[in-house]
Amino acid sequence: MAKETNQLKELTSRSENYSQWYNDLVLKADLAENSAVRGCMVIKPYGYAVWEKIQRQLDDMFKETGHVNAYFPLFIPKSFLSKEADHVEGFAKECAVVTHYRLKNDPNGKGIVVDPEAKLEEELIVRPTSETIIWNTYKNWIQSYRDLPILINQWANVVRWEMRTRLFLRTAEFLWQEGHTAHATREEAVEETIKMLSVYAEFAENFMAVPVIKGVKTASERFAGAVDTYCIESLMQDGKALQAGTSHFLGQNFAKAFDVQFLDKESKRDYVWATSWGVSTRLMGALIMAHSDDNGLVLPPKLAPYQVVIVPIFKDEAGMKLIDERAEKIIQELKALGIRVKYDNSDNKKPGWKFAEYELKGIPVRLAMGARDLENGTIEIARRDTLTKETVSVEGIAGYIQQLLEDIQQNIFQKALDFRVKHTITVDTYAEFKEKIEEGGFILAHWDGTPETEELIKDETKATIRCIPLDGDKTPGQCMVTGRPSTQRVIFARAY
Amino acid sequence: MAKETNQLKELTSRSENYSQWYNDLVLKADLAENSAVRGCMVIKPYGYAVWEKIQRQLDDMFKETGHVNAYFPLFIPKSFLSKEADHVEGFAKECAVVTHYRLKNDPNGKGIVVDPEAKLEEELIVRPTSETIIWNTYKNWIQSYRDLPILINQWANVVRWEMRTRLFLRTAEFLWQEGHTAHATREEAVEETIKMLSVYAEFAENFMAVPVIKGVKTASERFAGAVDTYCIESLMQDGKALQAGTSHFLGQNFAKAFDVQFLDKESKRDYVWATSWGVSTRLMGALIMAHSDDNGLVLPPKLAPYQVVIVPIFKDEAGMKLIDERAEKIIQELKALGIRVKYDNSDNKKPGWKFAEYELKGIPVRLAMGARDLENGTIEIARRDTLTKETVSVEGIAGYIQQLLEDIQQNIFQKALDFRVKHTITVDTYAEFKEKIEEGGFILAHWDGTPETEELIKDETKATIRCIPLDGDKTPGQCMVTGRPSTQRVIFARAY
Repeated sequence: MAKETNQLKELTSRSENYSQWYNDLVLKADLAENSAVRGCMVIKPYGYAVWEKIQRQLDDMFKETGHVNAYFPLFIPKSFLSKEADHVEGFAKECAVVTHYRLKNDPNGKGIVVDPEAKLEEELIVRPTSETIIWNTYKNWIQSYRDLPILINQWANVVRWEMRTRLFLRTAEFLWQEGHTAHATREEAVEETIKMLSVYAEFAENFMAVPVIKGVKTASERFAGAVDTYCIESLMQDGKALQAGTSHFLGQNFAKAFDVQFLDKESKRDYVWATSWGVSTRLMGALIMAHSDDNGLVLPPKLAPYQVVIVPIFKDEAGMKLIDERAEKIIQELKALGIRVKYDNSDNKKPGWKFAEYELKGIPVRLAMGARDLENGTIEIARRDTLTKETVSVEGIAGYIQQLLEDIQQNIFQKALDFRVKHTITVDTYAEFKEKIEEGGFILAHWDGTPETEELIKDETKATIRCIPLDGDKTPGQCMVTGRPSTQRVIFARAY
Repeated sequence: MAKETNQLKELTSRSENYSQWYNDLVLKADLAENSAVRGCMVIKPYGYAVWEKIQRQLDDMFKETGHVNAYFPLFIPKSFLSKEADHVEGFAKECAVVTHYRLKNDPNGKGIVVDPEAKLEEELIVRPTSETIIWNTYKNWIQSYRDLPILINQWANVVRWEMRTRLFLRTAEFLWQEGHTAHATREEAVEETIKMLSVYAEFAENFMAVPVIKGVKTASERFAGAVDTYCIESLMQDGKALQAGTSHFLGQNFAKAFDVQFLDKESKRDYVWATSWGVSTRLMGALIMAHSDDNGLVLPPKLAPYQVVIVPIFKDEAGMKLIDERAEKIIQELKALGIRVKYDNSDNKKPGWKFAEYELKGIPVRLAMGARDLENGTIEIARRDTLTKETVSVEGIAGYIQQLLEDIQQNIFQKALDFRVKHTITVDTYAEFKEKIEEGGFILAHWDGTPETEELIKDETKATIRCIPLDGDKTPGQCMVTGRPSTQRVIFARAY
């Protein structure tokens, strides 16, 4: 076994500048890039292929839990945004506003200008989220309890006019899914909220290999318009937290704002109960930052567009042909097991270049085969996660790789989990908190439950309460700042 | 065998008012509805499920032909639109313009208003199509012939501010895919254009069961910015044509507009060659109009969300239980063959209601099972396409249905093809043309190749040249209007 290093691509190292490393990686691994439109990204084919894997898996999980997809308009009439008081506060300040519906030739001959005669009577907002337009629609779909529940998901683009953007993590336009469900009872809506939180957690851990903590947000971190916001929180390698998904119990807030009532089984009128839940292309950021290293991307096998790459090492065309034949057989065996494999026998790049390239791209397993391997009936296997190599017999190689991919998936998760465990500490005094927060990681501490104390901590340390964890220790204690009673420790961190 | 009629749902009949029939059908079959936003539709879960089938199949076909997906920004800087002279003429007049990026509370206390201080320096256009933003991006991706070809597709929403809208057929916002490819040679780009036209034709005929004619558009019907626009044209039951997909050879127009040059193998600089191609949710309109009848939707099995529905007919709970057991076995057999089946044993609807409902929804095969069937080991099969019924043994039912679904797929296509053949005529004089065009259908006639004659015919008859067909009779002749020479007959029709 031997370690390899990346000679060809200049990634900034994580220790040197984590933020720059992330940006370099996203660009050099061909995942995404900034576009000519401020804050909007181009998701490149390789990045989009990973997103498609994420989408497909989540979509399957949504359908297994009884949801169906639909599509609602991109635009929201301005007046809709104002109908739910908290909602408008949260979203009006950062939205793209359509005011006109036509351009015309500039009378001065300088290109095209907005046609002042084509002004909309009411401005349209490019959806920052779709609760308002959807609940305005649900109003017509719901008369009685027989019309409930409605369990709809939408895959869509949304726009939030962010001032400081970062590829995948915070962009003006992003892709996401938003579930919007309607229920006859509070209990059922709460159950749905928690169910979808669990779906997200299962997806994050079993597919993205990112361990998450399930919790509920404090009032000040809640979704604008929600009664309760549940979330999954993950920890990145720089010790900063990243919120990977949220599931909101909306109570009857949107039903009241849009007057959506129904007749229950006893023919009594009541407002409908709601949830909404979403994950976005931000998950790509979590995926990249949680696992990757100074050599490039590390992808969990379950979400890797290619799980295996085969690189032939040949001296002449005759040798190449022999390797092609052997490789073809292996490819067929791998494909028969449902393994996604790429064969790169292009002759305009050297093997060394290819090795570095596929390392950068995070392909979990690389196979290399040369003349000696042909003679010996062997093949070299390199693991992306550990950067280790071994030479094995080609006999039974497909089954071996299938198991290896499972091991890699598990190993990546375990590594991230070990990291989180190592960087999760318990703190009892605010002095210690201020010291420890500089080191990054999750800090479990007692808090008195007031927004004032939360705000004070945020102002003084830049740390926010990531969530009040649902599982784990529920021992009461005293707020580290005020000494007032606390029902349980909450999780603090600096966050993306 | 017996005919059934729909007692429960009041669809306007096609003969009474085809346009109203279409609208009724889209609404009553729960496919889509108008939203609160002018010209924007809500695609309801059942309609979206059909669209997902369309998407998945097309996506597979794009990938089989070497394409990958990516994602480009929703917004296009206004100045980009002007860079290609024809393009701006075609798209500036009907676009949604974002001028501001923030709302604020109305100082007069009346909700929220656009914040005049948040005016964009340059307006952004909600993409009506993405050639400009994509070619501006490709500029940075392409240096040499080694970077070519680029074969990218995007699934996205686009907005064209249409004044008169109809669900699926013409909406302000619609969903589509747009392929944008870049090539080193004219030949390769033309080949790609034709290849994707063939993919569309294959999809339309083999999956949608809609026969299409492949052809090229006249100059006046060309995509704004294209050198040649190829299309597939289909014929609806009211005798009007519907353009189901287009594939554009863009020449070097966009490469020149965005200065995208490359070094060829001989190290000579040249502009890159381009294609673009797209189909949209308009296909849903074609699918609905081509096959459906006065009882509701008729879906080709390959695109039906459910291919089979099973309706139990029971008198009491004990009988129900027995039928449930028998049905479960059949469901397992059908699923094992990959057949999508729904079992509706809800007890709050009568079988008659269910029959009408699933007829309206276009489920290709309905199975009904009652007490007598249980005794006899039989089941009743109803075909949606022919509205015929038969009773068969449950032995080997799954294989029987698998074959039946293939027959139905084929029959629906054949019916649409027969209709088109019957409604395609050849006309030699303009007088006859004016008479025949009133009857609808495709008219093959000679045309002198000038936009003036084309315009005259359009003004006088509302008929447009749908395409110059690629296949079939290429005999020259004389223009039916001017008597001037014509190279071949072209296809006229009134169109959606």
